[in-house]
This record gives sequence, structure tokens and C-alpha cells, in this order.
Amino acid sequence: MRTTTDAFHLAIPARDLDEAYEFYVEGLGCKLARRYDDRITLDFFGDQVVCHLSDAWEREPELYPRHFGVTFRERDDWDRLLALVHQRKLCVFAEPSERFADKVEKHSTFVLRDPSNNLLEFKHYDDPRMMY
Amino acid sequence: MRTTTDAFHLAIPARDLDEAYEFYVEGLGCKLARRYDDRITLDFFGDQVVCHLSDAWEREPELYPRHFGVTFRERDDWDRLLALVHQRKLCVFAEPSERFADKVEKHSTFVLRDPSNNLLEFKHYDDPRMMY
Amino acid sequence: MRTTTDAFHLAIPARDLDEAYEFYVEGLGCKLARRYDDRITLDFFGDQVVCHLSDAWEREPELYPRHFGVTFRERDDWDRLLALVHQRKLCVFAEPSERFADKVEKHSTFVLRDPSNNLLEFKHYDDPRMMY
Amino acid sequence: MRTTTDAFHLAIPARDLDEAYEFYVEGLGCKLARRYDDRITLDFFGDQVVCHLSDAWEREPELYPRHFGVTFRERDDWDRLLALVHQRKLCVFAEPSERFADKVEKHSTFVLRDPSNNLLEFKHYDDPRMMY
Amino acid sequence: MRTTTDAFHLAIPARDLDEAYEFYVEGLGCKLARRYDDRITLDFFGDQVVCHLSDAWEREPELYPRHFGVTFRERDDWDRLLALVHQRKLCVFAEPSERFADKVEKHSTFVLRDPSNNLLEFKHYDDPRMMY
Amino acid sequence: MRTTTDAFHLAIPARDLDEAYEFYVEGLGCKLARRYDDRITLDFFGDQVVCHLSDAWEREPELYPRHFGVTFRERDDWDRLLALVHQRKLCVFAEPSERFADKVEKHSTFVLRDPSNNLLEFKHYDDPRMMY
Amino acid sequence: MRTTTDAFHLAIPARDLDEAYEFYVEGLGCKLARRYDDRITLDFFGDQVVCHLSDAWEREPELYPRHFGVTFRERDDWDRLLALVHQRKLCVFAEPSERFADKVEKHSTFVLRDPSNNLLEFKHYDDPRMMY
Amino acid sequence: MRTTTDAFHLAIPARDLDEAYEFYVEGLGCKLARRYDDRITLDFFGDQVVCHLSDAWEREPELYPRHFGVTFRERDDWDRLLALVHQRKLCVFAEPSERFADKVEKHSTFVLRDPSNNLLEFKHYDDPRMMY
Repeated sequence: MRTTTDAFHLAIPARDLDEAYEFYVEGLGCKLARRYDDRITLDFFGDQVVCHLSDAWEREPELYPRHFGVTFRERDDWDRLLALVHQRKLCVFAEPSERFADKVEKHSTFVLRDPSNNLLEFKHYDDPRMMY
Repeated sequence: MRTTTDAFHLAIPARDLDEAYEFYVEGLGCKLARRYDDRITLDFFGDQVVCHLSDAWEREPELYPRHFGVTFRERDDWDRLLALVHQRKLCVFAEPSERFADKVEKHSTFVLRDPSNNLLEFKHYDDPRMMY
Repeated sequence: MRTTTDAFHLAIPARDLDEAYEFYVEGLGCKLARRYDDRITLDFFGDQVVCHLSDAWEREPELYPRHFGVTFRERDDWDRLLALVHQRKLCVFAEPSERFADKVEKHSTFVLRDPSNNLLEFKHYDDPRMMY
Repeated sequence: MRTTTDAFHLAIPARDLDEAYEFYVEGLGCKLARRYDDRITLDFFGDQVVCHLSDAWEREPELYPRHFGVTFRERDDWDRLLALVHQRKLCVFAEPSERFADKVEKHSTFVLRDPSNNLLEFKHYDDPRMMY
Repeated sequence: MRTTTDAFHLAIPARDLDEAYEFYVEGLGCKLARRYDDRITLDFFGDQVVCHLSDAWEREPELYPRHFGVTFRERDDWDRLLALVHQRKLCVFAEPSERFADKVEKHSTFVLRDPSNNLLEFKHYDDPRMMY
Repeated sequence: MRTTTDAFHLAIPARDLDEAYEFYVEGLGCKLARRYDDRITLDFFGDQVVCHLSDAWEREPELYPRHFGVTFRERDDWDRLLALVHQRKLCVFAEPSERFADKVEKHSTFVLRDPSNNLLEFKHYDDPRMMY
Repeated sequence: MRTTTDAFHLAIPARDLDEAYEFYVEGLGCKLARRYDDRITLDFFGDQVVCHLSDAWEREPELYPRHFGVTFRERDDWDRLLALVHQRKLCVFAEPSERFADKVEKHSTFVLRDPSNNLLEFKHYDDPRMMY
Repeated sequence: MRTTTDAFHLAIPARDLDEAYEFYVEGLGCKLARRYDDRITLDFFGDQVVCHLSDAWEREPELYPRHFGVTFRERDDWDRLLALVHQRKLCVFAEPSERFADKVEKHSTFVLRDPSNNLLEFKHYDDPRMMY
């Protein structure tokens, strides 16, 4: 378990802040905390993601080695986010699938792509002890 | 506030897994959750960081636009981590400093560099409402 | 005590949504949850405030009988918000003062005015049992 | 999520305090915290509502732009409150209905009217991330 | 530790419900939950106390073997309640004192008497492990 | 909701401490905190009950106006305690029944009698808001 | 209930630290906190277990009087751990069974043996009040 | 962090159950949960310790490799327990000292011996991240 009071924070590139706002706030349903000329800061599922205006965005995104996301403790939260993705037609990079099906580490996963080609993976493990 | 039950997860490149283990577990005091041939998974301050063996590590690291870390709610936690950094001689990329000193967003920060040039920022805000 | 999982919600008039955004998000540091043509929804200190575009805003605001706000359990939170108010030059309707100084109900309070003349009171009670 | 320790507070007009007491305490099942000559203070689902004796109550109530209430995390809490409303014959301003049925923001809602024409909306969202 | 979700409940006699209301709600600052013809129910520091209209009240109260109250984890809460007792001139049955001063069980205590001669003891232990 | 850190405490008469121990610890499954010559202290469902050796025990117990017990938030806890009562053949003073069946205050209840004729009521409300 | 912030700690012998690592981390899914020449420290289901390199390990293990483990509040956690045991072929010392089937203390249990013959019992009680 | 709902459990030998009761309940202030002919079960700082009547107790106790105890998050809890040890003259096996004084793992510790020569270590780390 993690504390409720600290926050993970992640800084990522965004080629356009309006695009980023549209994807994260209007699409994914994150909350906008602050907007500056060169970045926006987000309450991303309770942690902080900062989109920095930058040209250093990935032109040819691959899942490894860089991506980020949330592992949900409750299956319902994963299902509901997937429903949101379909309803709001967010860009899916990897369709929902099951990994390690024959192992304790078995989990459900799907991957989104934001407008700057950052990849977001959302997971749910059958055995929550495997979340780490 | 975030929940105690979900976890943020971040995948980053590591040019060498033993090096990554040494930095994150023996250095930074994270817990090793699992080790595979091609990656290690860590309990990183309550969230999940996965170091993937990869040649795609950054040769010339810059703080923007990519870095990650923790924002502590309590100043003591930030101070204690800084003491650990000194005691264990972890590689400091940016010395402790204060940003936005004249603003509500004022916070203390320092940045570490892991052996694969991933940059880790640890922050503490005077006003915890600014954590996002 | 209240639960962490439910939310109070309050709908108020706003004569202009950009103004409301500026006051609540850029000023008071609330998070923007959603923006529609006719309203914005806010994460207001953990509860929901919705600003509806409307001409029914109060022309001559008085503190009674209508206002809203937060009662902080910790004095530090009240102090920090007051510091933010000064730093960001938010519009103060009633300066910080102490009410019921000779009673158990004693509390510190100040009142802000948003651009649509909604009044926001922020309080801290010496004895937290008096918060209700 | 919000904290358990702070409280939202809302001040509203009441044309008669006995009437207000009857509606909020005997009807809605809120707890009476304090009674003064000119107001009663209530523990309203964990937050504070204060009914101020005032002639400034709304003669022709409309749902927009002013109303308040609770968004429940659990459907059961919404259902149980609706059952209470029926059993105790509280004044319903808007019957239970579903809003935004085809969107992620989909939620169930009903609206009560207190004796001073304040409108109270109680909601439940299918996706709790939409509570804000 | 106890749960936040269950409640202890205690039924006690009251020779007069208005008197009981005055003592518990206006005096001690408890919240009134419900009032019936023959009893009032109270949110007493988070637990339930019910005052039943009854002639079976104690004419000659003694501290043993029957009394009830709250043991506070934080000294501040005990101090604040004592301040309230003085300010609101509640009837003190036993003045503040320290028991078991030379033992681990050492605690501060005072005892109130309600209008029906029920005795209420409020305690604070130096070592919270001794609360039971 | 109540805090997890404070404790309600109740002092009651016991005509015999061994009998009290047998009923509360071996029967009801409470934990023994301390035993003195003249009393035993118990962790009673997270609160403190103290049984004082005394001749002032009730010879002809009646449910009103004096009794105490626990109101469980979860039905399962009430059911499990009832199963324990049957299995360990504890003395039932009032069989399980439903009160206020046609009202919001509807709850299930049963009453035990301890060896000193103290009466213990255990309740579960359909609507947890009625616990107070 | 126990606190979230303290930790039980247990020191046990290990005839070989690599073996211990393999059993506890790769097998049981515990997290490795630290490794020294003469011991490894583990986050064992949230508590601390330390395996000390030692020749004092038990040659002929018996369940009584020495063993340790976890009692799960939720049946699902017990079931999932048992599934892990089967999938990863951990050494079972005592197969899953039910103890005290006709009593309130009824619980499900199985026992593992680590490579140094330490015995680990994992339990789930039907009535969680019997966990102690 | 660990959950509040599960419990670590540890079974240890006791050469005499009355002696064990005296040490753990009357001395250390643990709560007695259950007593059987062949064992007593204890609520030991929120976890379960079971003392089994057995002749397999250690005749020549050494700190390594077998001992158990609690690591407190708060220094005050460690200090208070040490005060209890002095006041109740519990048997100290190793006096309070500081280990790893020049390292991040620095912690305060003392060790008790129960009547059956089981050794109990109580620790407090300056940096709580080192508790594991």
C-alpha cells in the first residue's frame, strides 16, 4: 500500500498543450491543476502528471521501455476506464488483453496513446500482491 | 488525495539490471518485487517502477521534458531522503534548491540520476494544495 | 467526521465562465474537472462546485443568508489559504477576524468574493467539535 | 477523495427555523448540532449546513443556477435516501431520473425542496471519477 | 483500535427530555439525532447515547459501579472538553485529577453529572496502550 | 463516523469477576485487558467496558432505561455474533426481532443478559444513517 | 485492528540466503528490502521478516510450538495465496484443512515449509473476531 | 504500510501458561484473547501471538537467529514501552542501544526475555523507510 498523502509525479513531453488538455482532461477525465505557458499540470488518478511543451516527443512510440499508467486494485475501475475509452473514442495503442495467463502475475491490460505519442498502460492483476 | 489501493506504474529503460538493482534497492532503499531476465520490478515509495533492460536509455539527460519522482506531503520525508542521498553518495543531478520562492507554488527540490540516466526529482511544497 | 468517498456538491451562478475559471482555478487553486458551454465543474477542496453560466448572480452580495466555504480542521491549512489569498490578490469581502471570542464556538474566519459575487467563507475553530 | 477531517459549509436562508428543523432533522435525518435564535447548524451528511432565519428565501425556485446536495459513491446510499424520501413523504421537486444516459457522465439524480424553497440534489454516478 | 463504522450504544434514564437535550446538546456539544416522545438519541462523540424518559434515575449517584464516558487519544481533546465544561458551567461531579500517578496506567480524569444524575467520566492516558 | 483512536468507556457492576470474565472473554469473545482485585477491564468490540465488583447489580433487569451494546454497520457482523451466541449458549434476554419494521429506523436486534443482569443489545440498521 | 504504520518483525534462521531469497521473493512473492552478507530483510505481507544466515535451523520441523504466518481478513486473500502455492509449487507441510469446524473459532489453514524448515501457517477465520 | 485488517501470527513455546499470562498481559500490557488448556492467544500490539505449553523452550537464549517484536513508527511509542519495562521491572535481555549509528538503517532497540526465554526486540528507526 502507498500513502494517501504523497504523490508520484511524472513529467512528459507534449507537442501542443491544447491537444494535451483535450486528451487528458476532456478525454481521460483527469483534472487540470494548473496551466502555464510551457506546461499543464494534472491530477492524474490522484498522482501528478506534468505535460511540458517540447519538441522531444517520441516519433515512433514503442511500448518498451517507456510507458506509464495505473494499476487498479478493483476490476470495476479497470472496466469503467475501458468503457470511457470506447465512449470517448480515445486512441488505443494496444487492445485489451491478458498477460501471463498461466501465471500468478496474470493481469488484464490495455494501452492508450496520447497526442504526443506517450503510451499509457492501465492494468488489473487477479492477485493484487502482484501489483509491484 | 489518492487511494492507498491503486498504484501508479512507470516503465523506464535500464542499460544493466544489476546496476539498476544497486541504485534503486541498495541505494534509494526501494524494495525489489520481482526479477526477470529482462526487467526488475520495484516498490518505489509505494508505486511500481519497472526497469526494462534496453539500449534506449538517454545518453544526454536533461531535466525537461522527462523525469519522475515523488512529492512528499511531509517535509521530514524530503529531508530524510536527502540525508540518505548524501550518506549513500547517490548521484545528484541537481542540488537541492527552492523553486518559485515568491509564489504559492514554492517548493524544495533535488534531482538524482540513475545509472541509466533516468532523472528522479523529489519535491516538497510548502502548501500541499500545490502538489498537483 | 465525513467519509472520504462521497462529495458535497454546490451549484452557483457565474456571469462569465472564463472569469470563474480564473478565480477558482488560477486564483484559489481548485482543480478543473470538466468544462461545458454552460458550466464548469470544479474539485473544490475535495468537494464539487459547479459554476453555471447565468444572469441570476447577486448584484449586492451580503454575507447572510447565502455563502459557502470550508472549515479546516488544521489551523495551518487556514493560514496557508490566507497566504495564498494575499499572494494572489484575491478579492477579500471580509478581512480575517475572530468570532465568538469568548465562547466555545470561537473561530477564525475570512470571506472572499468571486467575480460573480458569490461569497466564500473559510473558517477554523479552536475546538473542532464545533465545526458543525 | 476529500479528507475526513475538514468540512464543507453552506449557509442558506430559512423562513422559519422550526420548519427547517422538521425538514432537515426529522425528515432528512440530519443531526442538529446547535440552535441559536437566528439559525440552526446541521451535520448534513458529514458537512455543515446552516439555516439562517431570513426573508431572503427564494419565492420561485429553479434548479439552476443554485442548488446543493450530496453525490454518493455507493449506489446503495442513493437508493436508501430515496426510500427515506418516500417513506417520510419529503417534498420532491424533481423525480428520480437519469442524466447523460449515453455518456460517461451518466448519473442518477433526484431533487428535493425544503420548506424555504432551497433545492437539494442527490446524485450517484456510474463512474465515480465523474463525481467532480 | 476500533472501527470507524460501528457504534457503541448506551441507553440511560432521563427524568426530563428537555433537560437532557439542554445538557447534552447545548452543554456538552453532542448532536441530536432523533427526538421521540419518550427518548432522544444523540451522536455522543461518535457513539450513540439514548436518553429514555424514565423515573428510574439514580437519586444518590456514586461513581462506582456505573458511569460512562470517553477516553481521548489526544491530550488536546481532553483539555478542550475541560475548557468547554468551565465555559458552559456544566455540573462537575469530580474535579480533574490524576489517577495511578506512579503507574503505567496513569491518566487524567474528570467526572460530570447530567441532570438525571448519570455520571460521565472523561479520561486521557499518558500511555494509549492503557486505554482498555 | 467515529474516530478509530478514541474509546467509549462504560463501567458496570459485576457480582463476581470470574463470572464476568467467563461471560465476556470466554463467551462473548472480548479481550481481557487488565485484571485487578476489584475489577476487570475489557476490550469490548474496540471500546472499553470495566466490570466493577459490586453488590449494586440489578436484581430485576428490564431493557429500559439501562442497557448497552454495539450497532454494527455490516449485517454480517450482527449475524456472526448471533451465531456465536447460539453456539456458546449465551443467555438471551430478548430473542432476535425487527423493530420499526415500517419505518426508516428499521433495525434487527437481540439482547443478552450477563451474569450480573446487565443487558447488552446488539443492533443492525438497514439504513446506517439511523445508527444515531 | 492493528495500525498501518508499525510493523511486526520476526527473525528466523536460514541455512542459505539464496535459497531463502528464492523461497520468499520468487516463490511467496514477498519483497526484498535489503540484503547483507549475513541476512536478508523482507517485506512479508506488510510486516518484516529477517532471514539470518545460521546453522541453528530446525532439522525436524514440527508445527508446535514454533511457526508463524498471516491471518487474512478476507477469504479471497487466503484463496489467492493457496493458488499461488500450487502454481509455484511451494513446499506444503500441511494441506489445507478446516480446524474447529464446530466452533466459533473455525478457520481454514495450510502450512508451508521454507528451505530452512521454518513453518508458515496461513489462516482465515469465518468470524474475524477470532483472529486473536 | 500494512493493512489494518490482517494479522501476523506467531506461535512460541511457553513452559508455563500462568507465567506467560503474567509476562504478556500483566507485564507487557497485551490483551488476552483466549485461554485453552494448552495455550493462550494474545493480541500483541495488534497482531496475534500464541503461547503453546511446551517443553521445547530455549534453555540458552541468543538473540540470533530467533527473536520477534515490534518496530514502532513513532519514537514516542518506543519510549513509552521502555518506560513500562522499567516501571514493571520486566526482564531486559539487552539494554537500549543504537545500532548502525552511522548509517541510514540507524535504529534504537532493546530486547526483553519472556519467562520461557523467548526474546522480544522493540525497535525504532530514524528513517521509517528502513523498517523493512
